[in-house]
Amino acid sequence: MADVVKDSFLIGLIGAGIGPSLSPALHEREADRQGLRCLYRLIDIDVLGVGPEAVGDLLRAARELGFDGLNITHPCKQLVIGHLDGLAPQAEALGAVNTVVFGADGRAIGHNTDVTGFAASFARGLPDAPMERVVQLGAGGAGAAVAHATLTLGAERVTVVDALPERAAALADSLNRHFGAGRAVGAAADLLPGLLADADGIVHATPTGMAAHPGLPFPASLLHPGLWVAEVVYRPLETQLLRTARALGCATLDGGGMAVFQAADAFRLFTGREPDSARMLADIGELAGVVVAPK
Amino acid sequence: MADVVKDSFLIGLIGAGIGPSLSPALHEREADRQGLRCLYRLIDIDVLGVGPEAVGDLLRAARELGFDGLNITHPCKQLVIGHLDGLAPQAEALGAVNTVVFGADGRAIGHNTDVTGFAASFARGLPDAPMERVVQLGAGGAGAAVAHATLTLGAERVTVVDALPERAAALADSLNRHFGAGRAVGAAADLLPGLLADADGIVHATPTGMAAHPGLPFPASLLHPGLWVAEVVYRPLETQLLRTARALGCATLDGGGMAVFQAADAFRLFTGREPDSARMLADIGELAGVVVAPK
Repeated sequence: MADVVKDSFLIGLIGAGIGPSLSPALHEREADRQGLRCLYRLIDIDVLGVGPEAVGDLLRAARELGFDGLNITHPCKQLVIGHLDGLAPQAEALGAVNTVVFGADGRAIGHNTDVTGFAASFARGLPDAPMERVVQLGAGGAGAAVAHATLTLGAERVTVVDALPERAAALADSLNRHFGAGRAVGAAADLLPGLLADADGIVHATPTGMAAHPGLPFPASLLHPGLWVAEVVYRPLETQLLRTARALGCATLDGGGMAVFQAADAFRLFTGREPDSARMLADIGELAGVVVAPK
Repeated sequence: MADVVKDSFLIGLIGAGIGPSLSPALHEREADRQGLRCLYRLIDIDVLGVGPEAVGDLLRAARELGFDGLNITHPCKQLVIGHLDGLAPQAEALGAVNTVVFGADGRAIGHNTDVTGFAASFARGLPDAPMERVVQLGAGGAGAAVAHATLTLGAERVTVVDALPERAAALADSLNRHFGAGRAVGAAADLLPGLLADADGIVHATPTGMAAHPGLPFPASLLHPGLWVAEVVYRPLETQLLRTARALGCATLDGGGMAVFQAADAFRLFTGREPDSARMLADIGELAGVVVAPK
């Protein structure tokens, strides 16, 4: 008798304030095109009125009720680790999990496709970018993931700048432990002008540029044509930073690629099928372009 | 702005030993034909290694994780009631719930579509059956549901026969409380010959005739052409009882109709859409015909 091929997948996203997430549409559209039955549900701790520490109970419940996997987002990416049976290397190195797969053996394994997703997007969108001196703005959760990706891709040195200098220093310390001393350094925000003048490129990993935080993360005068600019924000896809940099002639990478490739990598882990990332990139162009008009 | 039409449904079935259930296929096929995204998952307490009393925790978890509704089967149909916010009339009268709907207001309401499903199947398949004297064999959970349906349809008197006479008497007492004194009476199995000789029809509600319990529930010699025979067993659709009765010229009703209409009624409750029961009857003919060959 032939093996029964699994073609039905139940996935959830655990996090706070996740109502506007594009993940349900990204996963369900790709599954539909592959002829898979897929339901992707939002499990919003704000809606449930529970704290981030509820992630353990929610994870156990999801496994019992037949979920095949979960994405995990803020503020649960670290907390979830104590409830898992194992970690993939990127997740272990980063100390953060955005994807949990429930195996047929009942084990829950944590992965981090923010890291692999940014790396895939960067390799595709800026394949020839020089990476001797990279500046990264933002040392939060997204910043940690993309710094891991940048160093994995071969950046010689990443200078992490954050409005909280101690947060930048802590991330740099952690990066140096994993990638070797001297690969990362923390810096205060007032050093940004000199750092950018001297850099090959900048990775922007703060919320500035999102609909709720419009504007530029630093003065436009710090940009120069020799700099590539990689953006993490993807709603909108075209941030003011990208628009300004492109007008100057900078090579740019929008945040849609990271959003798509983290989803595509998770899709592969959840379903065992190869996603078509080109189709998913077209989806996000359409989905992220949807603007909710103010009332 | 137009209302957003809900078109995605996550349903589960809680019970013991439910691996072979046809409910996932019945619901998912009908949803597919209606262009709805539907995933129907089995939550088997045997597989989870928990007891029937876990139904309360599982129900709460399902609501938190975004299930739209649940079917409930043996051995949880009574136990679940203590965890609900309200009951539909049939469920309240029967004291058993096979369908739970999570409303947009967060309330969990219990229904019993075994009752409505058997009634719909009977009305469709045996519309002109005389119902002055009905004998019912089997006073378990299915028996209680179909006796409620038969009396609701207008049977004057139902005589409940069970291998456990006290169980037959208890069901008859309960039926009389709901439908009026004298509508039901319990009887021991040794009275069956006389009862059937005098009856308009018999409802068979024991497991005899299922693949694991082959054979006839009583001697073939008790059947006679004046009797209609309604079967609750639906795997196989053609039980030995139905085959024997049909050969004698009895009007018959197989158990597939109850299985389909209980699912169709649940589908309507879960989705708010009108199911096409004719298509679902064709499905069950195909699905229940699938025989798992012994190894």
